[in-house]
Parts: sequence; structure tokens; C-alpha cells
Amino acid sequence: MQVISKNVSDGIQSASWIRRMFEAGIELKQKYGADQVCDFTLGNPDLPPVPDVARTLQKLAGEVQQPFSLGYMPNAGLPSTRQRLAEHLTCEQQVPLGAAHVVVTCGAAGGLNVLFRTVLEDGDEVLCPSPYFVEYGFYAGNYGGKLVPVSSRLPDFSLDLDAIESAITARTRVVLVDSPNNPTGAVYNRSELTGLAAVLARAGARFGKPIYLVSDEPYRCLVYDGTEVPPILPLHRFSVVVGSFSKSLSLAGERIGYIAVNPAMPQGDELLAGLILCNRILGYVNAPVIGQRLVEAALGVTVDAGIYRKRRDAMASLLRDAGIEFALPKGAFYFFPRVPGRVDDLEFCRLLLEERILAVPGRGFGLPGYFRLTYCMDEAVIRRAAQGFKNAATRAAR
Amino acid sequence: MQVISKNVSDGIQSASWIRRMFEAGIELKQKYGADQVCDFTLGNPDLPPVPDVARTLQKLAGEVQQPFSLGYMPNAGLPSTRQRLAEHLTCEQQVPLGAAHVVVTCGAAGGLNVLFRTVLEDGDEVLCPSPYFVEYGFYAGNYGGKLVPVSSRLPDFSLDLDAIESAITARTRVVLVDSPNNPTGAVYNRSELTGLAAVLARAGARFGKPIYLVSDEPYRCLVYDGTEVPPILPLHRFSVVVGSFSKSLSLAGERIGYIAVNPAMPQGDELLAGLILCNRILGYVNAPVIGQRLVEAALGVTVDAGIYRKRRDAMASLLRDAGIEFALPKGAFYFFPRVPGRVDDLEFCRLLLEERILAVPGRGFGLPGYFRLTYCMDEAVIRRAAQGFKNAATRAAR
Repeated sequence: MQVISKNVSDGIQSASWIRRMFEAGIELKQKYGADQVCDFTLGNPDLPPVPDVARTLQKLAGEVQQPFSLGYMPNAGLPSTRQRLAEHLTCEQQVPLGAAHVVVTCGAAGGLNVLFRTVLEDGDEVLCPSPYFVEYGFYAGNYGGKLVPVSSRLPDFSLDLDAIESAITARTRVVLVDSPNNPTGAVYNRSELTGLAAVLARAGARFGKPIYLVSDEPYRCLVYDGTEVPPILPLHRFSVVVGSFSKSLSLAGERIGYIAVNPAMPQGDELLAGLILCNRILGYVNAPVIGQRLVEAALGVTVDAGIYRKRRDAMASLLRDAGIEFALPKGAFYFFPRVPGRVDDLEFCRLLLEERILAVPGRGFGLPGYFRLTYCMDEAVIRRAAQGFKNAATRAAR
Repeated sequence: MQVISKNVSDGIQSASWIRRMFEAGIELKQKYGADQVCDFTLGNPDLPPVPDVARTLQKLAGEVQQPFSLGYMPNAGLPSTRQRLAEHLTCEQQVPLGAAHVVVTCGAAGGLNVLFRTVLEDGDEVLCPSPYFVEYGFYAGNYGGKLVPVSSRLPDFSLDLDAIESAITARTRVVLVDSPNNPTGAVYNRSELTGLAAVLARAGARFGKPIYLVSDEPYRCLVYDGTEVPPILPLHRFSVVVGSFSKSLSLAGERIGYIAVNPAMPQGDELLAGLILCNRILGYVNAPVIGQRLVEAALGVTVDAGIYRKRRDAMASLLRDAGIEFALPKGAFYFFPRVPGRVDDLEFCRLLLEERILAVPGRGFGLPGYFRLTYCMDEAVIRRAAQGFKNAATRAAR
């Protein structure tokens, strides 16, 4: 008896081997104790929220007895939050944004869903560099869209502009980049992004319709070694930024993000009206009000990226010692190393599991033969895994 | 140039006359001052959040410096919130629910979207009694579904079971009821709902597939004159309750609701797995964490329904004095009166506008010839509108 839709049923099946890894981890933790397991699977930041969060909650506690304090608001968000975001993004994106160009959303994930619901027709394609954040396929698929992953250049995961240009068809509606990247930690530089914008402009002209350049930027605040995250809005008229405060303020569970539309976009008003309607009709209605107040108060503050840099360096030295090849991440909090030896990514993750180390096989991100590690946990956990990585690599080489 | 999808473009157009009324109201308020305008359009409760909300925010302010305090969590919600909700709903629904039967959602609107994404195939039909909450059409349409409104009995807006039975087809997947009802204030009694469950059981057997009975209950806490809101879960195996705390705790902007699945449902585990996946992939990821903590602390408390009852009575007496016919609402905070005189609902709302009174034409809810008034505002505003209603009714009679 079919109690759920075929598509959702398939979604559950396709997620099930990642889930199996996750459940193996739970089993392992129950068996040996959580502190005996090194879990590098989930990107759940362990840094506490920035101090402004506690201060603002304290302040809100004194204010919420006012009527409407936590009531409905315009679907695009609190006017004051939109205004503050516009000022912040004007600096960050180097184009003059007004409150009207910003829609506050239920995290970046909510922002991407709202955007795809707004612009995709059934069968439209969303291109993204691969390896990629596996949820993108679901986000496009929710609205009849199709994700088309395009392989990035190895070994540094930079954009392959020729491959992207070749992959664009009459059905391409969006090219979606995620920089700093999950799962690779790559940060696209100005020349790559300028080249990408040129590809999109040519393709748009060829097919007589706009192709949106969408930049998903939840990790913008986490870059290392002076790496620049170039603003996307000055590069392409049909560009949109989607961002979040989950990582910058350690606020992932409260679900606050935004969509910012290029003020220079032709018919940008129409896109914005569509985004606001879709934010409403997808059932978000508006982004959570308390989260909006927290972001408004804390905007510009970020957690200390230096802590993540030290963890990255610890993880890099551990991998080097185990003889595992990797591209050093320039941002975010992920490594995407090559599987060593003669085994595939599933088998290597199984070998790691035997060392009580949890990692995600690369095929979960569209690239078998690699695996993903997060480093948003204490350095002690990273260091504790050193011998286990060596053991697994040795066994993989046999 | 088509910058947004055709469907969203149509959505903006179809919403535009309600928007026009709303914008006329803004203009009126700017011209005469907000206190000179009686706005009965929007269901935004004016009661402050219950006191537990401030207390819990205060408590949270002292706790959020802990790592993970506002971080990611299981997609179905905080285990403790699910558990408390299960206990609460066990009393309310009179069937034994466990935490596993409850998914915390981004309001009832988020809950309905998650449910429709999970169960609807392209072209599936969602039946609902009409007049109806206009967003339902969008919620079903987001996932290729089609809303099929079925007229309720007049003048009391009770369920027309024969009409519902006749309207069920092989494509019917969900019958959605909203009780206490927006826009009518009707509350379906036990015999209506038992009859409806029998209709669904017969139809399910005829078409060899389950038809879900979904009860949308954001106004459950607001009933008057000892009216009972019968629990839906004991009536039909394939039943689901969707609820929210927007009205009971005056927390509409924080977006907290839930989906509760009948523990007696065959393959209920599969439905729940689908709901949890869809809560994730629609970009909600999880319901806002602070809202979950607030609900967990305040569950069982509600705003004083007596205040709304007094407002209802004030509005009823005002309408009677103006010679306007209506069914006295048993719950929620809406009247859905008949348009008096010889004019249609658009014209009558225009006449009210001239009296600086804002109301929504009934066609916005699928029933021309009626109009909707909310009474979630101060009684003084209601009383101030008395002469205006009389004037408009007099002019409508000419």
C-alpha cells in the first residue's frame, strides 16, 4: 500500500546508506561511549552562540509582554531586520542594497527552497559544481527541477568553466555555487567567478533568457590564510545571494538566513514579489521572529574563525601523517581527501569505523573515491583520531 | 521576459485584489491615522504572549552560552519537546501518542506543506469544505496537488457529507478540515466528524487506497459557550492532526506547530519517515529551536478565550444592529456574515472602506456574497465601527 508519494519513498531509500553510517555511529557510541568515538560526519558547530545572543534574549524577555511582540509581520521579515541586513550586505557585496532587496528566510536551506519554487518550471535544470551539498538535489526536485552536477577540476576543486558551459542547455535556469564549499572547503577566486559570470551571460544571450547565478554562502565568515570570498552581485545582473547565520553566530537551530537580489537585476521587483509570495505559501510565512531579532542585534559579529583554522591545521597534519592526500581547505570546516590505498570510499569509511572514526563516503556528494571530514569539534577529538587514520590507511594499502 | 515561473506569476496575480484591499487600507490609515480606521482584515492576535514565554526567554538567556544550545537537532524536533507534545496530545486526542508520532514543524502552515509534499503525487486532489482558508490552494499546488473545495451547508457552514462523498474521486488523497474554522467560526460536532470518517472509510475501500483525514487545528483553544472540539484521531485510522501555537500562546511570528500521526495508522512509520525527510528537504531542517523551548515550557497554558468571546459578542451585536445576517461563530476569531442589500461582496467591502472599515470579500475564501471580519482586536475598535456598518448596510440596500 502506497502511503507516501513515490518520490519521497525514493528519497528515503537514497538517503538510507548515509543513514546506515550514521546509525552505525550511534551503535558504536552506545557500545564504547561517545568519548571513545571520533565523529567527523555532522557539520554542527560546537562553538557557543556569540555573546550578543544571550544579551538580546535577556532584553527580549523584558519586551515580549507587549502585544504583537512575537506576532505576524510582513512575509519578507521585520522591516528593521531587513534594513540592517541591507546595510550589512551593501558592505559585503559592494553594491547598494536596500531593505526591499532582502528577504529574511528560514535559514539558507529555506532561502534556496523559496528561490527554486519561485523560478523553476517543471523540468528546469539547476547546475552546480560537483562534489556538492547533497541536499541541493532535493531542493530542486521539490519543485520539479533537476540538479545537474558538473565535475570540478581536480585536485583543487576549482571551477571547470568549459565543462559548465558545455552542460548549459535551454532548460538551465540556475547555476548554483557554494563558496566556501561544502564538502571541499574550496573558495572560488575572483577570476573563476568572473569567468563563470561571462559563461552565464553568453548562455543567457544564446538561449534568450536569464540564467541566475546563485551563490550559497553559509560559510562566508569562515576563511583562512587571508583568502578572499569575492562578492557575487557585482559580477552578473541576474545574481542572487543566499546566506545564513547558522555558522557565523552558531545559531543553526533557530533557522535564520536571507535572500539578497541584485539591485541591478532587470525585473528584479518581479523576482522579489515572487520570493515573498513563495516564502508565504511554502508555509514559512516569515522567518522565526526571535531569530530575526537576534541576527539584527548580532550582525557583523562572528565566531572566532581562528579556532577553526587551528582545527584545520591539526586535521591536515593528522592526514599527512597517515599519508592521505588532500587539497588544503581555504574555508568552511570540511576536508574532502582522497581515499588512500586500493579500496573504495565505502570500504575506507568501513575501515575507519573499525577504528571508531566516523566519516562520510564521497559518493554522498557525487564523487566516489573521496570522503568528507568535518572539523567543527574540539582539537582533542581530532588528535585522538591520529592513530586510527594511520591504521585504516595501512589496511587500505594492502 | 519570464523571470519567475508561470505558476508563481499567476499566484501573484490571483492574490492581487486582496492585496489591493490591503493597500487601500494602508492608504486610508496614512490619510486619516491608524486609529481612525477599523481594520478587521488580518488575524494577528493582539494579546501578548502568555507569561511563561518571557520567563522561558529569561531562562534561555542564562543557558545559551553552552555549546549546541541553539544548534542543529534531529529533523523531527527536540526529543524533549516531542515528548511533551505527545503527552499533551494524548489528552487532547484521546489516543496514546508517543514522541515518535509527533513532528515539530514551522507552524501549522509548515506542517501542511510537509504533509502535502509527503503524500501527494502530481495531480492528486485535496478536498476541503468551502468557504476555506485561501492558502490551502497554494499549499496543495506547491507539490502538483489540486484543491477541490466542496460547499458547506448554509447558513451554519456545517459539513455537507453527501457533497463530500460525491466529490471524492480516484485522485482524492486528503480530506482537509479546519475546525474551529477560518473563515466561518464553525466547529464541526462529533456526529458530523464521525459521518465524515465513515465517508472516507467507504471511499478508501472503494478506491483501494487510504484517504487521509487531516484536521488543521490552529484555533482549537478558542471556542465559546462550552462548545466541544472533538478529537479526530479516534475516528479514522488514516488521520493526522496539524496544529500550531500561534494563537494559543500568541506566538505567531516564531512559527511553531506540529504534525501528529494516528498511532493506529497502518504503515504509520513510513508516513512519519516521509514527514521527517520532507521537513528536512523543504528547507525547514527543524522547527525554530527557541520556539520549541518556549512551547515546551508553556504547553497547556493558553491565552484567555473569554476575551475573544466578549469581542465576538460585541461584533455580533454590532452586526445585528446593522441588520446583517450571520451564523454566530462557535470558535476561532472570525465572522463570515452575508452581504446585506443588493450589492456583491466586492462592492460591500468598498462601501465599508468608505466608512474606514476594512473587511475581506467572501470570494477570497471561495464564497462570494459573504465577507470576513476578524475580532482579534480591542473591543473599542469593534464598537467604533458600529455606525459605519449601519451606514454601509443602508447604502447597500438602496
